[in-house]
Amino acid sequence: MERTLICETPKKIGEEVKIAGFVQTVRAHGKIAFVDVVDRSGVLQIVGGAELVDLKPQFAVEVEGVVKKRPEKMINEKIKTGTVELESKKVVVLSKSEEMPFDMGAEELNLELPTLLDYRTLTLRHSKIKEIFKVQAKVLEGFREAAKELGCTEISVPTISASATEGGAEVFMVDYYDHKAYMTQSPQLYKQMLVPSLERVFTIAKAYRAEPSVTTRHLSEATQMDCELGFVSFEELLDALEFVGTKTLKYVEENCEKILKDYKVPPLKIPAKVPRLTMREAQKIILKRTGVDHTGEKDLDPEDEKEICKWALEEKDSDLVTITHYPTKKRAFYTAPDPSDPEYSLSYDLLFRGLEILSGSQRINDYNKLIAAIKDRGMDPANFEMYLQAFKYGMPPEGGFSFGLERITMKLLNLSNVREASLFPRDMERVDFRFSR
Amino acid sequence: MERTLICETPKKIGEEVKIAGFVQTVRAHGKIAFVDVVDRSGVLQIVGGAELVDLKPQFAVEVEGVVKKRPEKMINEKIKTGTVELESKKVVVLSKSEEMPFDMGAEELNLELPTLLDYRTLTLRHSKIKEIFKVQAKVLEGFREAAKELGCTEISVPTISASATEGGAEVFMVDYYDHKAYMTQSPQLYKQMLVPSLERVFTIAKAYRAEPSVTTRHLSEATQMDCELGFVSFEELLDALEFVGTKTLKYVEENCEKILKDYKVPPLKIPAKVPRLTMREAQKIILKRTGVDHTGEKDLDPEDEKEICKWALEEKDSDLVTITHYPTKKRAFYTAPDPSDPEYSLSYDLLFRGLEILSGSQRINDYNKLIAAIKDRGMDPANFEMYLQAFKYGMPPEGGFSFGLERITMKLLNLSNVREASLFPRDMERVDFRFSR
Repeated sequence: MERTLICETPKKIGEEVKIAGFVQTVRAHGKIAFVDVVDRSGVLQIVGGAELVDLKPQFAVEVEGVVKKRPEKMINEKIKTGTVELESKKVVVLSKSEEMPFDMGAEELNLELPTLLDYRTLTLRHSKIKEIFKVQAKVLEGFREAAKELGCTEISVPTISASATEGGAEVFMVDYYDHKAYMTQSPQLYKQMLVPSLERVFTIAKAYRAEPSVTTRHLSEATQMDCELGFVSFEELLDALEFVGTKTLKYVEENCEKILKDYKVPPLKIPAKVPRLTMREAQKIILKRTGVDHTGEKDLDPEDEKEICKWALEEKDSDLVTITHYPTKKRAFYTAPDPSDPEYSLSYDLLFRGLEILSGSQRINDYNKLIAAIKDRGMDPANFEMYLQAFKYGMPPEGGFSFGLERITMKLLNLSNVREASLFPRDMERVDFRFSR
Repeated sequence: MERTLICETPKKIGEEVKIAGFVQTVRAHGKIAFVDVVDRSGVLQIVGGAELVDLKPQFAVEVEGVVKKRPEKMINEKIKTGTVELESKKVVVLSKSEEMPFDMGAEELNLELPTLLDYRTLTLRHSKIKEIFKVQAKVLEGFREAAKELGCTEISVPTISASATEGGAEVFMVDYYDHKAYMTQSPQLYKQMLVPSLERVFTIAKAYRAEPSVTTRHLSEATQMDCELGFVSFEELLDALEFVGTKTLKYVEENCEKILKDYKVPPLKIPAKVPRLTMREAQKIILKRTGVDHTGEKDLDPEDEKEICKWALEEKDSDLVTITHYPTKKRAFYTAPDPSDPEYSLSYDLLFRGLEILSGSQRINDYNKLIAAIKDRGMDPANFEMYLQAFKYGMPPEGGFSFGLERITMKLLNLSNVREASLFPRDMERVDFRFSR
């Protein structure tokens, strides 16, 4: 008999079917047992006798039986198959499971983060955890749709690089045959090199950061969603990033309605025009609202980001706010200074519900200015030879931006730690398991 | 004035427009000059006078002017804008370029591979080279469409791992804080761990192989397109991989008609049923056709792959052929042996026009058998603890496959070296530039 997906069973009342999936819960009442089985399409109640009582959570099973309509008062409106159940005739155990180390049957999996990650292959099976990664898949899809609409071509760029790409010490070194090489901190330099070829590009790429600290917002290996556009002005870049950000978020909302409801997150509020502030303007608003004077600071700290997002929501009815003009010295060397005030740069962050989810800038596109900027940061232009080659042969005004996949997922579902939004998070303490074990 | 994309100009005859792009060629005839300008949408001929004569190839420019219909005899049918030209009124040079080190204006860029790669940011601007990566973008898109149709959810898995994933010495070591870690040789183990969660998954991921040799088919950092499916039989896996392979290739053919013509590659030949052979059957056919007796060999060598593809084309009218049942010892430890003859495995390769573009297998899904298989290869199960955890808690029959993005691109365009199908190829001799320089 061919397998029937669980979501199809309500259409097959009275028919004999075979389903396959994982046992979620087993409830035995005397000689009758109820077993919930989950496959990729949903969950189904199986009802039967002796053949079910030995089943345990996480057993992989095949069940043959007849789809029955449930009595009116037994209908479960919470699930898609709540109008039916499967009267089992034959059960085949495909794979047994060890005893559960904690309750996998509860609606919420209330585990401390270390336990959640130590048992990652098990906890990922819980429906609420699975939902995180279904949302993440839609973030990727929504981003790509938006990037394509902007005219970007998808590229696949390398992650092994001959030098520490963006400067700074937070870089992982690789033994590359008999040479030293480095994991790229972002696809940044390579996507820029593609502008003179494909003009508008996007890539979904790994970013490796040897962050020497553990925070709730950083991963040592993260996934970035990047765009880079040639022949654009600063205004056009702002329009482009707000377009991609808005479209990506809305795409998730449209495709994950049930999950967002399960996570009790409010509907998105994104006005037609995302509010824009310079960093200095944001600091002044924060001073006025809270009395906290950060107007002399060179960046927004996490509390500032939360406060200005509160302002955006209260005053502009917006979950998003774009902050521009960060101090030139605080941004990467390739960031273009504002010609009218070079102390500040043509840079931007996009904040979403209290957190930066995107960063980017107009870039320096002049070969000589770029060399000067590299030297100015105490770096050696010889380490950027391939990158500089692209500018030597003509580079139009260009810029781009980069979204953090895990951060967007985290904020969309209101998770408290970015590690919850990564299937197998890497940080200084953990690669699958904690090093200290 | 707003920028007009070059592909829009034939619809704007008589109108004043501004275009932006890169100078491709400059032809001066006395006081009249003809300049071809390229943007992401196409190429356009600009005609004008003194304002054009100082332009050089690869200058980034903005040109304002009036779109004119070309006289009948001047129409160029080779390009989409061949019926029009732009009479220039104003030219702004956005960025100058150095002198070209070779002729970028020719229809073909006939360079030796080292030169092609040493000047990568320049050679990627040539239209024939650009086309390779437009095809590559469509391979990615086609693969994702097919994987989604199979019911797979997209995942993003880590590339830094605590141990050398699949065994073997060909692995890159990373300094990971104060620990040794390794770049994954493939997303294999992680995608398997996701089967009990999302049941069917796909991922586009980097694969790092410290291959100690330089061949035309291998890269040290390659891009893989992977699927993994739970609750499937060997037959269903074969159907699935042939479905994804066929759909991906046909998607490219449908979306890259002009490029495939430029590359003079014949139309795809894929029958409704892709021919399937066991490795032993393939060796017998090769013996019969060529007299070369490889029937005792444990694998097909590159010449065998070419010969059996020739057979598939001549006898089955097919560019694809699936080879199954490679010797168990020749495949990775997680490959399931064929229960009816454990010396051979439930493995498969998909060959396309003479080259393996996909590899995969039914996996061992039994916890104890998997531990035995790891030990059998002289490896320590303790190094696979997170992976084994997934099997400890119930793993259904499952399997999957993996396509090489660069290899498919290479074969689709009949390129002679896989490096031509990678934007910035990495091998033992090169990271952007050759080490020996």
